[in-house]
Parts: sequence; C-alpha cells; structure tokens
Amino acid sequence: MSTTSTVPAALALASRLIACPSVTPATGAVFTAMEEMLTPLGFTVERFVCGEAPDGPVENLLAVRDSGAPGPHFAFAGHLDVVPPGNNWTSDPFTPELRGDLLYGRGAVDMKGSIACFVAALAAAPGLPGTVSLIITGDEEGPAVHGTVALMERMAERGVKPDLCLVGEPTSVNRLGDMVKIGRRGSVNMWITVNGMQGHVAYPHLADNPIPRLLRILTAIEAIELDAGTDWFQPSNIEITDITVGNPATNVIPAQATARLSIRFNDQHSGAGLVERIRALVEAEGGVLEAKISGEAFLTAPGTFSTLISNAIQTVTGIAPELSTTGGTSDARFLSKLCPVVEFGLTNATMHKLDEAVAVQDLEQLTAIYGDILERVLAN
Amino acid sequence: MSTTSTVPAALALASRLIACPSVTPATGAVFTAMEEMLTPLGFTVERFVCGEAPDGPVENLLAVRDSGAPGPHFAFAGHLDVVPPGNNWTSDPFTPELRGDLLYGRGAVDMKGSIACFVAALAAAPGLPGTVSLIITGDEEGPAVHGTVALMERMAERGVKPDLCLVGEPTSVNRLGDMVKIGRRGSVNMWITVNGMQGHVAYPHLADNPIPRLLRILTAIEAIELDAGTDWFQPSNIEITDITVGNPATNVIPAQATARLSIRFNDQHSGAGLVERIRALVEAEGGVLEAKISGEAFLTAPGTFSTLISNAIQTVTGIAPELSTTGGTSDARFLSKLCPVVEFGLTNATMHKLDEAVAVQDLEQLTAIYGDILERVLAN
Ligand SMILES: [Zn+2]
Ligand SMILES: [Zn+2]
Repeated sequence: MSTTSTVPAALALASRLIACPSVTPATGAVFTAMEEMLTPLGFTVERFVCGEAPDGPVENLLAVRDSGAPGPHFAFAGHLDVVPPGNNWTSDPFTPELRGDLLYGRGAVDMKGSIACFVAALAAAPGLPGTVSLIITGDEEGPAVHGTVALMERMAERGVKPDLCLVGEPTSVNRLGDMVKIGRRGSVNMWITVNGMQGHVAYPHLADNPIPRLLRILTAIEAIELDAGTDWFQPSNIEITDITVGNPATNVIPAQATARLSIRFNDQHSGAGLVERIRALVEAEGGVLEAKISGEAFLTAPGTFSTLISNAIQTVTGIAPELSTTGGTSDARFLSKLCPVVEFGLTNATMHKLDEAVAVQDLEQLTAIYGDILERVLAN
Repeated sequence: MSTTSTVPAALALASRLIACPSVTPATGAVFTAMEEMLTPLGFTVERFVCGEAPDGPVENLLAVRDSGAPGPHFAFAGHLDVVPPGNNWTSDPFTPELRGDLLYGRGAVDMKGSIACFVAALAAAPGLPGTVSLIITGDEEGPAVHGTVALMERMAERGVKPDLCLVGEPTSVNRLGDMVKIGRRGSVNMWITVNGMQGHVAYPHLADNPIPRLLRILTAIEAIELDAGTDWFQPSNIEITDITVGNPATNVIPAQATARLSIRFNDQHSGAGLVERIRALVEAEGGVLEAKISGEAFLTAPGTFSTLISNAIQTVTGIAPELSTTGGTSDARFLSKLCPVVEFGLTNATMHKLDEAVAVQDLEQLTAIYGDILERVLAN
C-alpha cells in the first residue's frame, strides 16, 4: 500500500495545522482541526484541557481506533504546540506558504508536519486490523507538566494501553531517515548553597568563608566519572554550569556561595540516585542541595521494533538509519514507561528557528514510511 | 616639659580642624587652618594640590622646622581628609560639639584629633634642637594616589629626609596607649579569568567549560600555606572573595568563569612575588591574571624607636602598649620606605562611624605623649 491522490495529502494537512497558531501551551483551533481530520477516519476522539496560567491551560487529545480485528495496539505520539516564532520571518509563520519545494511555517518540522503524515498514512490504510491510537498534547515545548503525563493518566483510566509507540519528533539530521532515536538520556539540575559568615579579609579568624567548602564540593563532583558509556549511550556527564558568590567588595569575605550542576545521564543511573550521591558530597561540607529531575533515561533496546522501523525507512528512502540516544529530552521519556518507544520524524535543521520549513518530498516520503510501519506492525 | 594653659590646647585645635569639612579628597580650608597653626610655631609650610576628579584634587602640606641646632630629624605624619559622615548624627558632624567629656565630630579620632595633638605638643616645646617635619595629606581615606606618595616625591625634591616618623592613626583599641603599630601587612587583590567556549549541556564535546579549570586553579591556591607567621606577624592569608560565572541558563555550558582573591601578607613576601606565584598557577590552566598591589608589608623591628614610644606612653598613661602588626593598611606603608615608622594615636572605637568622638582627656594625654616623644627623640 502507498499514498495515492484520492486520500488527503500530508501537505494539505500540514498546511491546515500550521494555519492554527498554537504557541505553547496550546488549546483550541489546532485541536479542532485535528479532531476533524481523525473522526472521518473512524477514530474516537477525546479532548480535555488541564492546568492554569502560566503553565496552562493545555489541551490534550486522545484518539483511538479499534478495528475489532485482532492485532497489536500501535500508537503515534506528538505535540501540536510550537515554540514562539520570533521576528523577521520571510512570510508569516502561521500562514503556511509553499516556496519552491519547501512548505514554510512554524511547526513545519516540529512537529505539525509529522502529525500530518500520521493522519495521511492512516487515511491511506483504512483496513488495518488491531488498534491505532494518537496521543497528542499541546504542551511539549513548555514545562510539560499538563501534557503527555496527563494523557497517560487519561489512557490508564480508559484502559488504553499501546504495545508499541512511535513519537514523531524531528530526529532526522541531514536527510530524512538518517537517524532514529531509540532512547534518551535523563536530565537533572542541582543547586548547591554553602553558607558561611561574612567578615573583613584583614580578620579572617572572625569570618567563615564558604568558598573553600564549595570548592571542595565541586572538586569532588568534578572527580566523579559516572560511567564509560554503554553500547547505546555515550558516557553520562556532569557539567557545573554556574557559580555565584556576588560579592562586590574586594576586602569582604562573603557569607554565601552557590553553584549549579546539570547532569545528563544514561540508563546506568536514576535521577534520584544521582541526587543522593551529590547530596552526600554537599552535606559533608555543610552545604545544602536542591534538585530537579527533568527526566529519567530510557532505552528501547535495539530489536524487533527498531529493526521494523529501520526496514520501513530503508524501503522508502534507501537509507539505513543510525540508531541514536543523543540530544535533549522529549516526551518519549514519559511514554517509555508504557511500552517500547522509538522516535522518528522529519529533519531538524530548521526546528525552533526562523523560516522553519519542510520539503514537500519529505512529507510524502514520511507518510509512506509511517504507512509502511503501520502495515508491518498491524497487518503482518 | 609638659602642656600648660599658656599654649594652644589640643581641644581647641581639634575643634577648629573638625569645623572645616574635608571629606576625602580634601583641599582648602582645613589646610589653611593647619598652615595658620604651624606658621607661628616657626614652620616653613608648603602646600600643593595634585590630581583631578574623581581621585582628586588632593591638597598636601609639608611643614619643616629646622632649629639650626644639631639633632635628629623627626616627622609627624597624618591626614586631614575624613570619610563621609553618613546620616543620623546626634549633632552636625562638621560642627564640633562638646557633650560631657567627649568632643564629637567627623575626624575626632581619625585623625584631626591626633593632628591637633601634634600641634599642641610642638607649641608646648618651642626650644627643641634638630628638625621637625609634618607630612599631612588630604587623601588617605580615598585611593591615596595623590597623597603621601606625592608628598614623598616633594620631600625628595626638597631634600627633606626624616630619621624617624610617627603616623598618628588611631591605633589604640580600648584605652589610649594600649596598642602601637610597628608594621602592617601588605595587601594585594587579584582577578582570575578563565575563558572557554559556550555550548549546550547535552553536547559537552562541542563546548569547553571553563569552570573545571577555574576549580583546579582555586584548589591549588587554597592549598598554599604562605607561612606560619613570624615573631611580629600573624600568618599571611589568602582569601578567595568572589567567583562569578553569571550563567542564567540551566542547559548552557558557560563561556567564562572569573574569581577574585585578596591576600594579606607579612614581611616574608612581596606583592610582586605573590602575583608571580599565583600567575603561574593561573596560566598553567590557560587563565589570565590581573593584580593590584595596594601595599607592601613593612616592619619597624622592635628596638630603640618602639621602646622610646612605649616608654613615653607608659610615663603618661601607666600602660605598656602592645606592639602590633594587625589590621588594614595605612600610609605608613609608603613612609616606611623613608625611615623607621611607628603608628600611634587615639582610640579607634568610633572611627568611620556615626557620632565619632574623642575624650578630652585623651587629647590632653596624647599631647603629653607626643611631647614626651619629641623630647626623648630630639632633646636627649
Ligand atoms: Zn518537538
Ligand atoms: Zn585614618
């Protein structure tokens, strides 16, 4: 099965989604457009709004189509919110415009274009057995507290449990199909505060400089080698990203010194374990630690699912994708708790940038790849 | 010889100096008052103004009285500028006011009171042999670039070279006479800059975080033990007083990290030697060092001069003073290059504070002590 001219083309669908401004957190029109695309394809669509300003309100959409015929449950996941467009676009960021072979507009590659390809692929494959879900949030680019996590709670209430999930983030780097993400590193930020007692540099015995204690903490942290990497992950990494004392006076011993760390870690570690390890070093010097875990590491170990996706990509594009775990975090960090997750989508060169654009050919090829994946998962 | 009621009393002279506002840098009226006090005592007075805003203009006064009779050359040194008074004084800071046993006014102890005692002691001892100089600046409380250093250049031009010098800074702590300063530690501030390359924490191999290199530099500096102190000095001390990275973004590896040190050092070290020692550590990690030496350490080794001053103090007050090298810097750091220098003056409890005040009895006793010193140095 392949795309034909009798079904909605991804280009038209992507244009329609881009035309609905949806700077994160998103609600409303873009979800109505999505619902209107999915209902004719036999999906039961549930929309709900969570949260309040400034993190919300956020709209989420859960669409499920159970064919009635036995088969696996496959999910597409993604987001309809976009980052703010900024200024100086060549054409209006929320008026999709085709110039040459490229469709311009905020979200063209991240990731309204991919979502359009989900829909186009489903439209082209009406008779599939098993179950297909779409898990679509309006809060991936923001704090993501009312987005995919809320969708997963709703799915649990509804008994919606996919066996495999594909997140349509723009993972391709130079050419469509050159990279698939099979995991992501976890991320945790930590803030260290060491308090002392202010005084005059001429009378150090009457003061307590917190800087030497902070130095010992940071030196101990710098000496940590978390791991040497794994088959699928680069080594976990600790970066000290800031130190602040904020003492303008050359003759004053300061009362406080603070520092901030960012750790990107692979699946050899948990966020909580790292926090406790650093906390011990900080408290040994009388410091105080605060931490925020943004996401745990996950890995969908290379196997049947990633091979299936690689084969689909190679069939359509001729390219054998690299299986990667590099880069920042995505909502796949949440979905990986449900089932094996792989991320694959458009090229990311223009994501979050001025004049974000997608090649029309990429939309057509990605539709074909997603269609091939649906067939391989559900029909075979 | 002792003070009598027929010569100007230190109280009246101190009041006259306090009544001339002279927030640092000082020029004009307060120097005219000083000149009018010294000319009748047989001094040749030279006044000159140096520098421009904001460090100047600064007035300096050099007064010399050569008796014609052979004998040593003794100098009193001090400053007529004062720190800003601030608000909320009980009485106007530039209107000297006697309340109870105390004379209130900015500069009462630091150090118009002491300078009044110089003059009162000289007025009470008209027939001394040898030479007496007064080295008086209007820029001790400020940056001190156009003050005592300029006076010393003028003295060199005029061939004025004292054999001994007493600086009238308020060295007494609890009671007049309890402390004499026979030296001061030197002081140097240093600024360290380490440059790297900014990047994203998810891609550390594309960035160069300067913080680990700064940490290694600062840890090496913290490990330095400059000395264990000497008979007359406490141990030299290095304080790291500030660290600044200034990176607000949790996911960004910063491009620069800076730190600041303050070293107070005894006569085992020179400012330049310390700068070179720290510079080697900084440059080993690719950092850049800037330094500003505020003053070298000096010591007037305990001996004839300090014993003479101790004896004068003990004769008048009954107290045996402690010979100390503690505290911040003073203009004695410059004058010590000319001849042996000792510092002795009023109690420092209210210096630089609201409602600065001097006990009338302290003015009388300090006049007697200075007079006794003049006699011991010149007449015996
Ligand atoms: Zn995205
Ligand atoms: Zn002073």
